[in-house]
Amino acid sequence: MRISHLLGDHYKEWPSEATLKSHGFLLKGGYIRQVAGGIYTLLPPAKRIADKIEQIIREEMDAIGGQEVLFPVVLPGELWEESGRYESVGSELLRFTDRTGHRMLLGMTHEEAAVHLARTEARSYLKYPFMIYQIQTKFRDEARSRGGLIRVREFTMKDAYSFHTDQEDLDRYYHICLQAYRRIFDRVGLPEVIDVKSDTGMMGGSVAHEFMLLCDDGEDTICLCPECGYRANMEVATGILASNPDVGTQPAEEAPTPGIEDMEGLQKFFDLPLSRMIKSVVFTREDNGKPVVFFLRGDLEVNEAKARRLAGTELLPRVGSEEDGLAYGYIGPVGFPYDKVEVYFDRSLEGERNMLAGANRQDVHIKGVDMTTLPVKEYADVAKVNEDMLCPVCGKAHIDLKNGIEVGNIFQLGAKYTAAMKMTYVDKDGKSKTPIMGCYGIGVGRLLASVIEASHDDYGPIWPYAIAPWQVHICAIRYSDEAVRRMAEELYDKLQKAGFSVMLDDRDVSAGIQFADADLLGVPARVIVSPKNLKENEIEVKTRDKSHAERLPLGDDVAERVAKLIRGWYL
Amino acid sequence: MRISHLLGDHYKEWPSEATLKSHGFLLKGGYIRQVAGGIYTLLPPAKRIADKIEQIIREEMDAIGGQEVLFPVVLPGELWEESGRYESVGSELLRFTDRTGHRMLLGMTHEEAAVHLARTEARSYLKYPFMIYQIQTKFRDEARSRGGLIRVREFTMKDAYSFHTDQEDLDRYYHICLQAYRRIFDRVGLPEVIDVKSDTGMMGGSVAHEFMLLCDDGEDTICLCPECGYRANMEVATGILASNPDVGTQPAEEAPTPGIEDMEGLQKFFDLPLSRMIKSVVFTREDNGKPVVFFLRGDLEVNEAKARRLAGTELLPRVGSEEDGLAYGYIGPVGFPYDKVEVYFDRSLEGERNMLAGANRQDVHIKGVDMTTLPVKEYADVAKVNEDMLCPVCGKAHIDLKNGIEVGNIFQLGAKYTAAMKMTYVDKDGKSKTPIMGCYGIGVGRLLASVIEASHDDYGPIWPYAIAPWQVHICAIRYSDEAVRRMAEELYDKLQKAGFSVMLDDRDVSAGIQFADADLLGVPARVIVSPKNLKENEIEVKTRDKSHAERLPLGDDVAERVAKLIRGWYL
Repeated sequence: MRISHLLGDHYKEWPSEATLKSHGFLLKGGYIRQVAGGIYTLLPPAKRIADKIEQIIREEMDAIGGQEVLFPVVLPGELWEESGRYESVGSELLRFTDRTGHRMLLGMTHEEAAVHLARTEARSYLKYPFMIYQIQTKFRDEARSRGGLIRVREFTMKDAYSFHTDQEDLDRYYHICLQAYRRIFDRVGLPEVIDVKSDTGMMGGSVAHEFMLLCDDGEDTICLCPECGYRANMEVATGILASNPDVGTQPAEEAPTPGIEDMEGLQKFFDLPLSRMIKSVVFTREDNGKPVVFFLRGDLEVNEAKARRLAGTELLPRVGSEEDGLAYGYIGPVGFPYDKVEVYFDRSLEGERNMLAGANRQDVHIKGVDMTTLPVKEYADVAKVNEDMLCPVCGKAHIDLKNGIEVGNIFQLGAKYTAAMKMTYVDKDGKSKTPIMGCYGIGVGRLLASVIEASHDDYGPIWPYAIAPWQVHICAIRYSDEAVRRMAEELYDKLQKAGFSVMLDDRDVSAGIQFADADLLGVPARVIVSPKNLKENEIEVKTRDKSHAERLPLGDDVAERVAKLIRGWYL
Repeated sequence: MRISHLLGDHYKEWPSEATLKSHGFLLKGGYIRQVAGGIYTLLPPAKRIADKIEQIIREEMDAIGGQEVLFPVVLPGELWEESGRYESVGSELLRFTDRTGHRMLLGMTHEEAAVHLARTEARSYLKYPFMIYQIQTKFRDEARSRGGLIRVREFTMKDAYSFHTDQEDLDRYYHICLQAYRRIFDRVGLPEVIDVKSDTGMMGGSVAHEFMLLCDDGEDTICLCPECGYRANMEVATGILASNPDVGTQPAEEAPTPGIEDMEGLQKFFDLPLSRMIKSVVFTREDNGKPVVFFLRGDLEVNEAKARRLAGTELLPRVGSEEDGLAYGYIGPVGFPYDKVEVYFDRSLEGERNMLAGANRQDVHIKGVDMTTLPVKEYADVAKVNEDMLCPVCGKAHIDLKNGIEVGNIFQLGAKYTAAMKMTYVDKDGKSKTPIMGCYGIGVGRLLASVIEASHDDYGPIWPYAIAPWQVHICAIRYSDEAVRRMAEELYDKLQKAGFSVMLDDRDVSAGIQFADADLLGVPARVIVSPKNLKENEIEVKTRDKSHAERLPLGDDVAERVAKLIRGWYL
């Protein structure tokens, strides 16, 4: 490829809309252009990288017995009605009607399509286990698409579905797939990706892992134990919390707190640490619109994923009204309308005495609340993990919180979809049984962007050799110079014949512009041909990451020597 | 791949819904499954073939300087408003609104997306010419999807867009692309595909060619001259029609024709050849709902594509009403309300005398109509070509009509999209100019199905080696036999190591079932290992098309000899 004809301008300035490094470099280097919110065109360099990532994924999926298929992007609504997701998934599922009025949707994930296919084609136990996968366009009507290719509405995803006759076999294959994922991330140049336990969310099922690239700008939070290696997504992480020092029991006593409705106000008013207070958080149940109250220690926050799992429904923020029968700002466990309002207590309150809480009346709190005297049936885990907590596994070290980008996920779905969609097979014994499933996803574009987050300098991406858009970038400084052009063209020709993909900068622009553009394209090996070099009877060969730089004397076999050098560095 | 785990049942019976051979074999052989009308999942064999076809297309596009990109499937309505197609394209364009109420659509072709990209990235003449292409999912909400992968709603298409500074350069590149298309069809195994001139339809532009596979079951009609090679799609084809023998002028005379409203009735009533009558055909203009009348010789049919071009709007069938002021069944050029109703005359009527026509009054016709006395300003080409006509180029031979399947098309779009979307570049002279475009499409799934139409026998597809899902198919007859299994597994292993993709039939089923399934998978080379063969100290190697069959004696190097044989046949 000659850069003079490559489509995709390089911007001089950092794009103002870019919040992430990857977003900025993808725009600046002419990799992507936005067509609508969260919808991008991939330009040639990004398309080439995506192809290489896809090929690595394909090889690893094939290596664990995957069969590649292609499901439709547009799916009939009936399929999603069978699984129950036509109703249960929110407006991120894009629904529409076709010309005949049929309800259709854009696939955001393909469990239904996979079961639809497998239930007619795998009716005997002899076919099991098997895994099918596709690499296909998906659409998710995200309310807040952002970060370039990190959170988009339209994206290419590898999604795989495995089918099994029993849990043991699913466990076995799930582990095989987890290992394949590790190899994929290694091969695309992200060996630092870790797997963490995660929430199953709208996918259903029981066991799930996310693959996380630790990264300051990541939007997920991961809890890590530096001692034993425990790791989990914030949504499912737990931690061991130190109880308050026991200060004995004090008699309960009402205290007037006129107009003081928040924790900070109370802290000042009573000069009390937050951990000595009982916080209440109220949500609205999405299923029936009723309020649900969570009590927890005042220094902690509600983990909404945990709260959602406890309540068994999506939760929405609640705007309090008089009809609720709750004294908003003064809600507490003493005198709470337990018979009327659903309530959960966090473990952090268990056994705590001498706490401050709302009195369930306007402008009044109660001091000396003793949890052990209250009618609490059960304490649950509702609080967000923080760095004051100890690892729940080894109990030895404080938990570290890190930001990360989710670059893949795997789920044990069990029989959620197969049972709902009435998929069965005939077992050895002639009986009809329901198979169970796993599913395994990787977003190609997000992975591409994540590689930039992990591998760049101030000037652009530094592409790992295995996924680089081109392998060699020839800068022909002063291309109009006859000797430069001849040498550059010879190298361009011979290096391509030697099997490298090569970008040639054949423009009559300054060395500064050529180098800046080469940095933005991030090609691993760079060859510099210039009048100055040629005068000294040599050319320069460097790596994009600056780890290697050599000057090679000219000669008939110079292209061969360049090839050998680059192979030595990268292969 | 082992057939025991391959997903995709083989049906015993011919699928009743299949109208085309390709449709039937794709269902019967487990290549595709319908998910909704005109929407299919590709199973592993079809996906593998599609991948190989795509790779051939990609190589040929890259070879003529194409830059691969990826446009979105979901496009914003505004882009199509810019080009005017948001309004002008019918309900085959699937429109919907996203969660924020924005008008979106599913891309059925990507001229708008290509211009949207190119207009910001190609602002200097120095970038020109260039061609960008993608291989991507498209959606076209066809009213009548049918024929399996031949006419679907969702499909994978390679669409390419070239941009040029002048017509000469577009002509040059258009020809280069036409040649690349020829190579693509050659390489996928359809050397018999021909290019024919075609209508530009909703794409706009002036010059267009379709690539046609001649095929009895094709839904397109192509006009060919056996003498000079003239070829054109029926929609644009012309022909030379012999005039009626001159029988002189006869006085015009009214004739009562009570209740005789059609040509056949008149033919019987007057014992007159159809060519001596004037036929009228009435359509409704889509743009304003008014009637438009076409007169042509009674033995000819209206070509709707030609009629549409003349009228400058889509045409719909008209249900006549009294308000039209037309005597339906008795419409003729004498006494026609020329001042009120739009009318066109076909060339076939020019100079004709002594014709029979409707008198524009109920139950009355006129004999002896002389066209030369009527106020006809212009005769146009409205009639369908038929085999009575002579070639319009050489005039020597009668035209042949053949059925065909369109497997690709190329268009010179001129400035239709670039002007509408205000795309400009700065030319050498510093002036802002509008570039012109060509576009070039191939449907991958339709091409796959077309190969079956061209290459099959009674038992299944016969895949050309270059696109076959696997290259070698080992039938291990009585796999449970120790010696058979050992030999089959050895060949399976060694042939894969030798670089072949191999399907192994490892099931304990009869030879008949194995051979029938192998025929349906259509793999070019077949190796048969059976107790009977082994007893005779040999294995069999055959081609799917029965052109070759050999028996090879066993021995340490038998896999090598099989590989050599197959390479000799196919490479």
